[in-house]
Amino acid sequence: MSEFEKIAVIGGGSWATAIVKMLSENKAKIGWYMRSIYAIEHIKRNKHNPNYLSSAELHPEQLDLTNDINTLVENYDVLIFAIPSAFLNSELEKLTIGLDNKIIFSAIKGIVPETGLIVGEHFHKNYNVSYENIGVIAGPCHAEEVAMERLSYLTIASQDEKKAKELSKCIKGRYIKTKVSDDIFGTEYSAMLKNIYAIAAGIAHGLGYGDNFQSVLMSNAIREMKRYIKKVHRMKRNINNSAYLGDLLVTGYSVFSRNRMFGNMIGKGYTVKSAMLEMNMVAEGYYATKSAYKINEENGAKTPIIDAIYSILYGKKEAKEVFEKLTNMLD
Amino acid sequence: MSEFEKIAVIGGGSWATAIVKMLSENKAKIGWYMRSIYAIEHIKRNKHNPNYLSSAELHPEQLDLTNDINTLVENYDVLIFAIPSAFLNSELEKLTIGLDNKIIFSAIKGIVPETGLIVGEHFHKNYNVSYENIGVIAGPCHAEEVAMERLSYLTIASQDEKKAKELSKCIKGRYIKTKVSDDIFGTEYSAMLKNIYAIAAGIAHGLGYGDNFQSVLMSNAIREMKRYIKKVHRMKRNINNSAYLGDLLVTGYSVFSRNRMFGNMIGKGYTVKSAMLEMNMVAEGYYATKSAYKINEENGAKTPIIDAIYSILYGKKEAKEVFEKLTNMLD
Repeated sequence: MSEFEKIAVIGGGSWATAIVKMLSENKAKIGWYMRSIYAIEHIKRNKHNPNYLSSAELHPEQLDLTNDINTLVENYDVLIFAIPSAFLNSELEKLTIGLDNKIIFSAIKGIVPETGLIVGEHFHKNYNVSYENIGVIAGPCHAEEVAMERLSYLTIASQDEKKAKELSKCIKGRYIKTKVSDDIFGTEYSAMLKNIYAIAAGIAHGLGYGDNFQSVLMSNAIREMKRYIKKVHRMKRNINNSAYLGDLLVTGYSVFSRNRMFGNMIGKGYTVKSAMLEMNMVAEGYYATKSAYKINEENGAKTPIIDAIYSILYGKKEAKEVFEKLTNMLD
Repeated sequence: MSEFEKIAVIGGGSWATAIVKMLSENKAKIGWYMRSIYAIEHIKRNKHNPNYLSSAELHPEQLDLTNDINTLVENYDVLIFAIPSAFLNSELEKLTIGLDNKIIFSAIKGIVPETGLIVGEHFHKNYNVSYENIGVIAGPCHAEEVAMERLSYLTIASQDEKKAKELSKCIKGRYIKTKVSDDIFGTEYSAMLKNIYAIAAGIAHGLGYGDNFQSVLMSNAIREMKRYIKKVHRMKRNINNSAYLGDLLVTGYSVFSRNRMFGNMIGKGYTVKSAMLEMNMVAEGYYATKSAYKINEENGAKTPIIDAIYSILYGKKEAKEVFEKLTNMLD
């Protein structure tokens, strides 16, 4: 029996719910961990998640729901992590069981704030998971459109092609197409970087820049992303593939992106702190900016956009002035 | 005295008006040809174009307006053509003066329907203009945002770098940044191809595909554009520069794009003819699709998106079915 018979999702948010929905089309049983016992009871009774992606119909008879992460990890071989990166560490600290014989897929688009590592590296370095047992679910995909069953494309990355193909089989279907890749570093870094560029797009919008500038910003962002990732992990990749460029676009052009909204508030004059309070959450890109900047201090890729966002979010610089300088560095 | 002292714009539409506005910031006198004597009188009296981009304030004292194309061509050395490609030929047929000692810049984003050539090639082959006297004004730019003086970036291409730099000096300013390039073929072909991809984006939207698919479509479009242009004119170029990718994005993501609107109507079930009648105009991308398809029949680049749009617009194929097949060719 393949390990992919025992597959579970960790997380109770929109993206976790969307992944459970995709898996439900192909698998008879799916493990699902979330913290809230209230949400679990609601799903069992009402067949949808009360808080996130509530329009997606769920099938409780297929779901092995638990709010005990250790029970889940004990019973499943393939674990798909889909919680915000800011909460990953506190969840993992609850574990009393090792992860070293598990297959871990990251559907987290961000960096682990405590370690400054992308999720795959975090599992490898701190939980002894070998790289061949690590994978990434990437690609341009709003969870909301999965709920609506609108055609979406995902890239499944693993250095072990067989595992990428196996996971791919579990999630592809009527409205999901998949592609496999061996670039676990590039797909994760780009998923993290695109949140910074979405903040940049939001700030630009908030400052009154228009669509002409937005297109120049995105054109520069994808070139910057290519330079950045090349320094982190050099390999042959086409940065214009959906997992990189597509993902940048779906976030950078989305008015629903939380990162873009966060940036927009800052562009309109909110302080970083008040924007966070107002949103009642922390945008992934906020942490990503700091980590990306720090990592690049050593790597030395030319990253004017990341540098600009870092100086606004962490250097108390005025967005208006920073962007005026930035516009001269773009082309 | 440089030839760039005597610079004129040909065309009375939005983009021509935007270019006149940019030139007005730097030049004391600008020649401007448009067909409508009514519009000319209106501009002189009311300081704005009555029909297009009417929010842009014009300065009649700087404008040498005429509705006689021969007078204009006789008096000016640098001619910027900014009329829809569908009307270029009929305007050029009025000429009784040669163009062989003129510097021609094309701000036309399309193909000349009668010859199937991009504008630069058309002038070279039919009007004996040497390639070193031909240039292109490209880049992601809605004319409306120029009127609003929102920061925009243009790429000025010419095989003669000096001429690109000279024109660049004439149009850059407070809200316009410029970049020079020597890729007159690539910038013109991409400006023409992006209209086809905007039609594709519109059809997809009309058929009910969402933002996830749109990002995959654009990611595939830029890769297709790269393959296409490489066959037409092979040279070192970064397809992610603003003149190519930026231009694709500003059009493909614009809800105001006429090409996207045309596509949207077809996606919603209008016939090609009724969509054209309803819009009371022909979208540039309609002609571009036929020419691009024909040119590529010889070149043989892999172009699933162009092929799909061609089969819908010219092969009477159902958009819904064509797109269902197309989705399997994208990744």
